[in-house]
Amino acid sequence: MRVLGIDPGLRNMGWGIVDVAGVRLRHVANGTLRSLGTDDLASRLLSLHTQLAQVLRTHSPDCAAVEQTFVNKDAVATLKLGHARAVALLVPAQAGLTVGEYAPNAVKKAVVGVGKAAKVQVDHMVRMQLPGVQIDSPDAADALAVALCHAFHMQSSGRLQAALRAAE
Amino acid sequence: MRVLGIDPGLRNMGWGIVDVAGVRLRHVANGTLRSLGTDDLASRLLSLHTQLAQVLRTHSPDCAAVEQTFVNKDAVATLKLGHARAVALLVPAQAGLTVGEYAPNAVKKAVVGVGKAAKVQVDHMVRMQLPGVQIDSPDAADALAVALCHAFHMQSSGRLQAALRAAE
Repeated sequence: MRVLGIDPGLRNMGWGIVDVAGVRLRHVANGTLRSLGTDDLASRLLSLHTQLAQVLRTHSPDCAAVEQTFVNKDAVATLKLGHARAVALLVPAQAGLTVGEYAPNAVKKAVVGVGKAAKVQVDHMVRMQLPGVQIDSPDAADALAVALCHAFHMQSSGRLQAALRAAE
Repeated sequence: MRVLGIDPGLRNMGWGIVDVAGVRLRHVANGTLRSLGTDDLASRLLSLHTQLAQVLRTHSPDCAAVEQTFVNKDAVATLKLGHARAVALLVPAQAGLTVGEYAPNAVKKAVVGVGKAAKVQVDHMVRMQLPGVQIDSPDAADALAVALCHAFHMQSSGRLQAALRAAE
């Protein structure tokens, strides 16, 4: 099972792909999609859409997960993030993938064990889980964390299903 | 010149198409795209994307215009609207159209003459400008108003260019 994680952003959109086989995890690729602040919004969304669709064509993930958005006090920033996040949700859905959504605290809890972990701890645990990984950017690290979070949820629901089958 | 106007929304997205020939305007079509609140967000965005792409294939507009978003105090609603608005900007851009953006007050000023006009005045002026039009919904009326606003801006910039050519 190949999982695509996405950390949405209009200027920098991180992505990371992890293979999951039972309890084993393997890093596949990660990167950062960018759009120019000088372009109009429609062009920026088109550019991000094209780049993200290329990532899906290259790596053929089986499912995707996107970080949920903090609704903060800066409404203009929230609105911009909403635009970028729509692209992150839309492209995998267009490819027929189910798209999981995880709150930032759920991602931290899954990867580090606590919901209020610092960024540096998340980064450290991503490197521990995926030995030898070269991480493209902080946004790509966050995207790998989202992919790991989704992988852990699938693994635990897999174990649950196996236990239920064994109990039948 | 065929203009597509869009009033973005996640639950109801209005669209309206107007033909512009010199100073003459003609209504082509209008309607409302809907997505189910019970579906997950990725599925809703996919559904709106598919429906809006179908409108473009059916009517082949030459350009598009999308209403800008009020950033209000309800950050959750602002974020949802950002997701829907991304689809409204993305689909025309994918079809190679330029996409104009107009603030709600600019639309009202263009259609009614004042920026603080009531919705009922906008609706009335849309019907005046497009005699015999059957309007599908309040969102479709707003979308036709955006299309008219874009048409008026093109007409005035066309007159300006003609005046500049005459003055050469």
